[in-house]
Amino acid sequence: MLTVIGIGPGSEAMMTQEAVAALKAADIVVGYKTYTHLVKPLVGDKEIIKTGMCKEIERCQTAIELAEQGKNVAVVCSGDAGIYGMAGLILELVSQQKRNVEVRLVAGVTASTACAALLGAPLMHDFCHISLSDLLTPWEVIEKRVQAAAEADFVVCFYNPRSRGREAHLARAFALMAPWKPAETPVGVVKAAERKHEEKWLTTFGAMDFSRVDMRSLVIVGNQSTYIRDGLMITPRGYKL
Amino acid sequence: MLTVIGIGPGSEAMMTQEAVAALKAADIVVGYKTYTHLVKPLVGDKEIIKTGMCKEIERCQTAIELAEQGKNVAVVCSGDAGIYGMAGLILELVSQQKRNVEVRLVAGVTASTACAALLGAPLMHDFCHISLSDLLTPWEVIEKRVQAAAEADFVVCFYNPRSRGREAHLARAFALMAPWKPAETPVGVVKAAERKHEEKWLTTFGAMDFSRVDMRSLVIVGNQSTYIRDGLMITPRGYKL
Repeated sequence: MLTVIGIGPGSEAMMTQEAVAALKAADIVVGYKTYTHLVKPLVGDKEIIKTGMCKEIERCQTAIELAEQGKNVAVVCSGDAGIYGMAGLILELVSQQKRNVEVRLVAGVTASTACAALLGAPLMHDFCHISLSDLLTPWEVIEKRVQAAAEADFVVCFYNPRSRGREAHLARAFALMAPWKPAETPVGVVKAAERKHEEKWLTTFGAMDFSRVDMRSLVIVGNQSTYIRDGLMITPRGYKL
Repeated sequence: MLTVIGIGPGSEAMMTQEAVAALKAADIVVGYKTYTHLVKPLVGDKEIIKTGMCKEIERCQTAIELAEQGKNVAVVCSGDAGIYGMAGLILELVSQQKRNVEVRLVAGVTASTACAALLGAPLMHDFCHISLSDLLTPWEVIEKRVQAAAEADFVVCFYNPRSRGREAHLARAFALMAPWKPAETPVGVVKAAERKHEEKWLTTFGAMDFSRVDMRSLVIVGNQSTYIRDGLMITPRGYKL
């Protein structure tokens, strides 16, 4: 059995009960080292196989092989395993290689949702998730989505907004959105949500300081109705109050 | 204290540990009757205030008043409270009316994430949430977003896809997307996810049977790379396999 578990943003409190139960039932836990570290208190003395960044295929392959040998393997991902996580890769490999492994997916609280609750209620209306990493996606595809999202007035959540080697991506995305996002549009940033050294702040589209954003950050850009009041970022659902 | 709790799709297993703890700590639970019913086993003998559909403002107002009187009030929403839920309305009312109430938001697993895990891994690449209810949003705004999402090749999750009085909305949305979504594009539907009578099925954009979809359903339309294999809907993240 191979269980792919979304552990939520980082705190044990934000894990689902199913995720906790699945972790406790596992023989072996496999994951990126930051995530295996986060679940360490729940995992106890179980075997942990941790790998570094950009080792996704090897990591999933190892997990599949162990599961095929009869182990109860848990693959841990931050947030939800089905959103920029390992769920898809596991299913692709199992299916392509015709592996005899039962895969179970355990959904989790994804970063946008967790960060929104820390900022107020910015996702109360239609929104998009866009990853600004072009490791696996051509930059032109990302550009097109950023522009379309801004033009159609979606709230936009940027995953992987800025990292080493991709310092300029977020600024480029903002430049692409500028024709449709007025300078006063609220923007919320959460760094390391629900983890040690969590930080969050509100700013505006025009005053955005890109240098404060890193790869552990999530950036939420409001729509035309989003406002900031009492230190909270709120996108109205549309009720007449 | 007023805690706005996303209870996830419906099963207790999919609630976060924080949500369970917050529910147990509450004096009074307020919510739409379907949702208060879902959490009944956790709530025990506590006072429950349940209201019908379209009573959102009254429901939130009641919760705010009880909290201001010193009660520990939990407002329950399905999925995540910050996604088409009550978090925004509560914050708007508290702030507008300058209420002396501390509001705490507890994020939950939203429908798209939960349904994706039931269908495979359809949300592994950039995606949008669009609600097809025009009760609170002009239909032209919805149309614009549907077209933009299709044109930029987002995976699209439709919330409130079809309900009494809005039987044609989903078909209209599909017609708007048709220029960019080939007939063979995979579509996944989950009805009553994680609840009694849960149903799910995979189909294609061209073969979609709208009549099977109701207001408890979530519809996920794939992007250009999404495929169906071994009964699973998978959107590749882009790894070279």
